[in-house]
Amino acid sequence: MKTKIIRILIIGFGNIGGGVAEVISRKKENIAKKQGLVLKIVGIADLKGVIINKNGLSEEDIRKFKTGEKIEKTRDLNIIKEIEHEVMVEATPTNIENGEPGLTHIIAALESNRHVVTSNKGPLALEYKRLMDLAAERGKEIRFGATVGGSLPIISLVKDNLASNGIISIKGILNGTCNYILTRMAEQGLPYEHVLKEAQELGIAESDPSKDVEGIDTAVKLVILANSVFDRDVSYKDVQITGIKDITSEALEMADEAGYAIKLLGEVNKGGCLKVAPRLVPKDNPLNVRGTLNVVTIKTDLAGNITILGKGAGPIETASAILSDILGIYKHNNENDFII
Amino acid sequence: MKTKIIRILIIGFGNIGGGVAEVISRKKENIAKKQGLVLKIVGIADLKGVIINKNGLSEEDIRKFKTGEKIEKTRDLNIIKEIEHEVMVEATPTNIENGEPGLTHIIAALESNRHVVTSNKGPLALEYKRLMDLAAERGKEIRFGATVGGSLPIISLVKDNLASNGIISIKGILNGTCNYILTRMAEQGLPYEHVLKEAQELGIAESDPSKDVEGIDTAVKLVILANSVFDRDVSYKDVQITGIKDITSEALEMADEAGYAIKLLGEVNKGGCLKVAPRLVPKDNPLNVRGTLNVVTIKTDLAGNITILGKGAGPIETASAILSDILGIYKHNNENDFII
Repeated sequence: MKTKIIRILIIGFGNIGGGVAEVISRKKENIAKKQGLVLKIVGIADLKGVIINKNGLSEEDIRKFKTGEKIEKTRDLNIIKEIEHEVMVEATPTNIENGEPGLTHIIAALESNRHVVTSNKGPLALEYKRLMDLAAERGKEIRFGATVGGSLPIISLVKDNLASNGIISIKGILNGTCNYILTRMAEQGLPYEHVLKEAQELGIAESDPSKDVEGIDTAVKLVILANSVFDRDVSYKDVQITGIKDITSEALEMADEAGYAIKLLGEVNKGGCLKVAPRLVPKDNPLNVRGTLNVVTIKTDLAGNITILGKGAGPIETASAILSDILGIYKHNNENDFII
Repeated sequence: MKTKIIRILIIGFGNIGGGVAEVISRKKENIAKKQGLVLKIVGIADLKGVIINKNGLSEEDIRKFKTGEKIEKTRDLNIIKEIEHEVMVEATPTNIENGEPGLTHIIAALESNRHVVTSNKGPLALEYKRLMDLAAERGKEIRFGATVGGSLPIISLVKDNLASNGIISIKGILNGTCNYILTRMAEQGLPYEHVLKEAQELGIAESDPSKDVEGIDTAVKLVILANSVFDRDVSYKDVQITGIKDITSEALEMADEAGYAIKLLGEVNKGGCLKVAPRLVPKDNPLNVRGTLNVVTIKTDLAGNITILGKGAGPIETASAILSDILGIYKHNNENDFII
């Protein structure tokens, strides 16, 4: 048996990019043993600069790049084109205005005939169809399981495991920050501002929390589901959005007395629905999950309602989704493509 | 593009086998359009007899076979060998004593170089390793998503979507009948015998409910998870089993007052654990689902805990899992294998 190799280039080396390097380090031995597949990180680039080794970076090199002790070049995105690799991991931050710099990176990778795995929601929420068309033209894949639900394999669950089903709708909680705030407000009777501050101190909310609490992050994820699962062609601007800032503890208490929780739900279906808003959820409904958990209920025509829940965020959790996508690309393509 | 064809032979034409014919009828046009894949049922066999058409049975023929109006031959299992097909669907009832007749059918199919998709738990709970070895030897697949959790894609979720993760344990409710009984007892304060009778009248429990209420059905599913997910080599006899017959409404009430529900849980892990027993579940734990729902929590090393829940049974739900497995075989194998 010839050894198969996937050479990986990581663009963007913050929490998620770093998480990808860490999970590859933890898992590569096992993957080599079980699947005869060698994973090599051949390059990393971020705002600081670039580090490259076409035979695979050592863990020491990666550590030193992270701390800034060893940086080979200034930032040079020609490496996407120039350094040979099979999969580019795009892990720069989401930019919902114009998708950059992720959009440029993904296009460069596809045009250089690389597969792409990304956690970056911006390019997919803005230019989904263009990117898919380009990938198809090049015979390459873009996988993006990490963009929706973090570690929850929502997209592959729907597309692969429930392949026989027609999907009627997907509804759920796709933002852990909002869910944390609403859960704490409801359980402790605390006001919004107080809980937001607490969440910021815990690192659950960002210093500028607007993308989360205004429902924008949920809307972006919903757009990715709409385009990838429902074959719609929508962008972020098509979503009807209401955030959680106006929810009072009195509203939560009133809902509680009537047997409901208030949750920020995203909902998308095959037809017109594309909506983010606070909604009443019966307490015994599976969508009523607490804390920072994410959850979706997938309504299908044959299998009924299927609900999946778990941690929606976290660098290692998100990186695990990226690694699953890398392995999915290997499994789904001719393995001879990976003999170098 | 050449048309790909999957010819299907269905063995066992009760609720599930009939459900498979129905979901294929409902979905085949869409699958042909979307994937360029033609699904043809070329034969059906059950205790009544056999009906065959190598060009594909008409819906009228299938309907008439079901009502007994049209049966071509007496029962003749040589058709597994003789009639050309790509996938045999084994949907005869589970027999936990010796796995028959399913075991013989599956072996015959593999030896005739057919892929196998089955909802029959017996052969897998008794002879897992033997069947997998035979399939590997023939370069064919056995898929059995329908055996555990019905419509819930537990096995493929773990093996495909969470591929990057090490699986630490799987714990959950795998029998809807027991869950219905315990839920009703708890919510209405009714005694076991009363609720069992009610469940039998509703068709939720069988006239002989022993396999369900004694935990045997859960144990068999657990064995399939142990062997397929955890690479263990265990059989039904290795499971430590306690059923629900001795649960009193008083026990449920006491648990309720302390913030718990009592649920019949199956639990399996990489090491020694292989256990079915009534357990206390905190009311706000995702495993606390009501009615006939099934649920499992998959504990992973990277993605944390992932919980999936939905309808565990029902002919159409189970048939949808079988059809997803058929489509999975197509996707996972060289599509040129399906040009006839």
